Amino acid sequence: MQKRIKSFVEDSKFQNFIMALIIINGVIMGFETSKEIMQDYGLLFHIFDKLVITIFTIEILLRIYAHRVEFFKDSWSLFDFVIVAISLMPSTGGFEIFRILRVFRLFRLITVVPQMRKIVMALISVIPGMLSIAALLILFFYIFAIMATQLYAETFPQWFGSLGESFYTLFQIMTLESWSMGIVRPIMEVHPYAWIFFVPFIFMVTFIMVNLIVAIVVDAMSEINKDETQSVVREIHSHDEGFSLELKELHLEIRELKELLRTKL
Amino acid sequence: MQKRIKSFVEDSKFQNFIMALIIINGVIMGFETSKEIMQDYGLLFHIFDKLVITIFTIEILLRIYAHRVEFFKDSWSLFDFVIVAISLMPSTGGFEIFRILRVFRLFRLITVVPQMRKIVMALISVIPGMLSIAALLILFFYIFAIMATQLYAETFPQWFGSLGESFYTLFQIMTLESWSMGIVRPIMEVHPYAWIFFVPFIFMVTFIMVNLIVAIVVDAMSEINKDETQSVVREIHSHDEGFSLELKELHLEIRELKELLRTKL
Amino acid sequence: MQKRIKSFVEDSKFQNFIMALIIINGVIMGFETSKEIMQDYGLLFHIFDKLVITIFTIEILLRIYAHRVEFFKDSWSLFDFVIVAISLMPSTGGFEIFRILRVFRLFRLITVVPQMRKIVMALISVIPGMLSIAALLILFFYIFAIMATQLYAETFPQWFGSLGESFYTLFQIMTLESWSMGIVRPIMEVHPYAWIFFVPFIFMVTFIMVNLIVAIVVDAMSEINKDETQSVVREIHSHDEGFSLELKELHLEIRELKELLRTKL
Amino acid sequence: MQKRIKSFVEDSKFQNFIMALIIINGVIMGFETSKEIMQDYGLLFHIFDKLVITIFTIEILLRIYAHRVEFFKDSWSLFDFVIVAISLMPSTGGFEIFRILRVFRLFRLITVVPQMRKIVMALISVIPGMLSIAALLILFFYIFAIMATQLYAETFPQWFGSLGESFYTLFQIMTLESWSMGIVRPIMEVHPYAWIFFVPFIFMVTFIMVNLIVAIVVDAMSEINKDETQSVVREIHSHDEGFSLELKELHLEIRELKELLRTKL
Repeated sequence: MQKRIKSFVEDSKFQNFIMALIIINGVIMGFETSKEIMQDYGLLFHIFDKLVITIFTIEILLRIYAHRVEFFKDSWSLFDFVIVAISLMPSTGGFEIFRILRVFRLFRLITVVPQMRKIVMALISVIPGMLSIAALLILFFYIFAIMATQLYAETFPQWFGSLGESFYTLFQIMTLESWSMGIVRPIMEVHPYAWIFFVPFIFMVTFIMVNLIVAIVVDAMSEINKDETQSVVREIHSHDEGFSLELKELHLEIRELKELLRTKL
Repeated sequence: MQKRIKSFVEDSKFQNFIMALIIINGVIMGFETSKEIMQDYGLLFHIFDKLVITIFTIEILLRIYAHRVEFFKDSWSLFDFVIVAISLMPSTGGFEIFRILRVFRLFRLITVVPQMRKIVMALISVIPGMLSIAALLILFFYIFAIMATQLYAETFPQWFGSLGESFYTLFQIMTLESWSMGIVRPIMEVHPYAWIFFVPFIFMVTFIMVNLIVAIVVDAMSEINKDETQSVVREIHSHDEGFSLELKELHLEIRELKELLRTKL
Repeated sequence: MQKRIKSFVEDSKFQNFIMALIIINGVIMGFETSKEIMQDYGLLFHIFDKLVITIFTIEILLRIYAHRVEFFKDSWSLFDFVIVAISLMPSTGGFEIFRILRVFRLFRLITVVPQMRKIVMALISVIPGMLSIAALLILFFYIFAIMATQLYAETFPQWFGSLGESFYTLFQIMTLESWSMGIVRPIMEVHPYAWIFFVPFIFMVTFIMVNLIVAIVVDAMSEINKDETQSVVREIHSHDEGFSLELKELHLEIRELKELLRTKL
Repeated sequence: MQKRIKSFVEDSKFQNFIMALIIINGVIMGFETSKEIMQDYGLLFHIFDKLVITIFTIEILLRIYAHRVEFFKDSWSLFDFVIVAISLMPSTGGFEIFRILRVFRLFRLITVVPQMRKIVMALISVIPGMLSIAALLILFFYIFAIMATQLYAETFPQWFGSLGESFYTLFQIMTLESWSMGIVRPIMEVHPYAWIFFVPFIFMVTFIMVNLIVAIVVDAMSEINKDETQSVVREIHSHDEGFSLELKELHLEIRELKELLRTKL
């Protein structure tokens, strides 16, 4: 029984059916943003939505039944599980957020389409190499956010009123959005030397970001480089084996010659 | 007859004539944007324009006659065909757009100048490697556009009134243009936690874009790397062939030696 | 005595204690930015701060005692020394700046966590390769700042009133922040040809910056490339040594054969 | 005589003197931007400036005398010549521009400092590889500038009033500065479909720019790659020569053996 359900769940036809369902669901969610369309088809969409949630729930239950504990060890399965769970949450009475998160259901397309999965995994694989520089960046931000709050909380509370607001404003400055005309120039009218704080901040943050990107490029390249080097080394090996064989044959022949001489003479 | 037309159409003199025509046409189109110049030379420019269209049309007809079905299999020829077809469209009565698209005729310079063609082909060859990440980015945008419309359509209809407007605004945020001072700060005055939506969006979109660019760099580099590796492998091969020959000669000599010994002793 | 202090100071338990102290100090410094929290816990925080400074001072003194002159030769130790010294400075009567700089104490996390140290050293190692291009950029900026002051000091004193202000404004233009709508368009209303100054400036500065980043990427890659090449060369060496041995053996055997023949015949 | 002047002009002491003069001149030019300093030292600065121009003129004349026609064949010398010539131009009566361009004299630091020269030459060497993509970009800009002028000259003359203004505005949009909030959103209020023109423009221009930068990186990397490959090939060669020698010796010995056998038996 468990086996039959497993083969049913993993059947490509079933997978395609789920994929089709996600796509149709996605299109309908797009339509749902339009009030005019909702007035005419709102009820239909609502019924379809309930149907989709039901099918997804059954699918997840079947997959849990089929894979048992393994289901919860696979991160993609867990991802599907959480997304379906969100859809089943009550979305009224202070939980309106779950109604918004319902749209995350479309992310299941990543789980269902193998190529999408591959890209997402490739993107995720980049993250560990970035963590150490990211940690430095966070420390940096934290220190500068504290300083900015100490310096400008009183004169510019709208930007640096609290640690959180300073974090946000420094992030905005990092993206270079309106950093001068919007933030630093107004501040300099009150604190003329504010540029001593902000210009080095931009320099350092940009420098760290550039190095972060360079690290990603270099990581990706060095992997390819290693592959190429190995293919050269393999080539050297294979050729050398051919040689070794020929040399050994030569050895043998010379030994035979010696034997011949020894016995004949 | 067909052959003679083909050789005439493919003649470098004819090609240069067409190229010169495109360039002159381009310069005149530039002048046409000036009202003062148009008052004095408008009629002249109009006549010249008609002349150019006529010559281009004849050229295309000759090329179709010369290459027959092959003409429509070559994408550059099709490109030329479409551009000339646009110039022949009526540009009055609701079709003013065709008058604007007339200027696309200058893109024919790409078809005529081989170096330009090469670059455009190189640029296009980059696209397939980007498609998978682009697909992920579109899915991402779609989901966030739906959420943004659900969240802010009522309070900020000028930015997130419909799915299309949300797409546009999110694209603007992706380019980091006025994302904070222009969009997110005003929103945060109504929805104080809006940054939970927008800051992760910027992070993820920037991360995906950086990886897109890294993919282009790595693709281009790995091709060059492969070439270099192959040149090393070729080098190894050629040397090894020399060795193999020398070793074979040694074999032969030793065999001769053996024969000599066998017969003599 | 000196040895025992050295082993105590370098003990991983002591190091972890210092690290924990820095982190707790950091968290508290974050809380200190909030007025509400300060009203309730201000005194407690103040006492803890005094405690931390005392411990840090003792730690530094012990390390100086343990390492003697060597302490001042290690740049990380000097870094710690300066940061603790800043904390001990009076922060009243015109020296409020030292109270702000107190937060730099958190940078000691870099000195204490070896991985952080490694990243910072990697980041610093990038700088020498940038210096020559940076020098060019500074010369460039200096010349354009002088010209901008000469040209626009009178009409736009808020942006180009002095050499320093011109430097700042040109830096803002380099980051492309509001360069056109905020700076150049208003200037062009007075000086219609101002774009001749600013557009080439943007072109050149962007071009130099791109080359700066390319230099960082290429430097990082070429190092990896060198490593790979050396591993290939090592491979070639090791194989060749094997060959040389086999060939030498062949030599020996043939020589033996010759001896055999000479003596026997 | 000519020889002595040549050795005098090329003497490192004389070069250092000129370099010192440029730097001092640069510092003074910086001071000249300040009105207060000019009131006190204006006359002194003016005299020093005359002195510097005189020395530079004499230097150039000596170098022309020393190198004769060769002087005008070296692009660095020509650069110096043009810059000194600018300084000698009258700066009154409609030629105020020459007074501004006087500051270009500081660029002579590049000619005098060999390292600077090297970097500038490295930067210039990057340009040829960019030209073909740049040509495509210019064609692209030209076509879109014509279209923008045709479409928006009447409704938004301040941005797209003439071909030149369209060029400038499109350049601003390419740098992404205020492209949406400043330009496209206001336009969309009049022409709701303006995004069909601008969003693809941004996409294509950004795509071309990214490929331009990738081309620079790849060019720089491929050169390094070639060097590494050649060092591997050299290694293979050198080892193989050693082998060839040993194999030849083996040949010789076997031949000797044969001779020995032939004569003895």
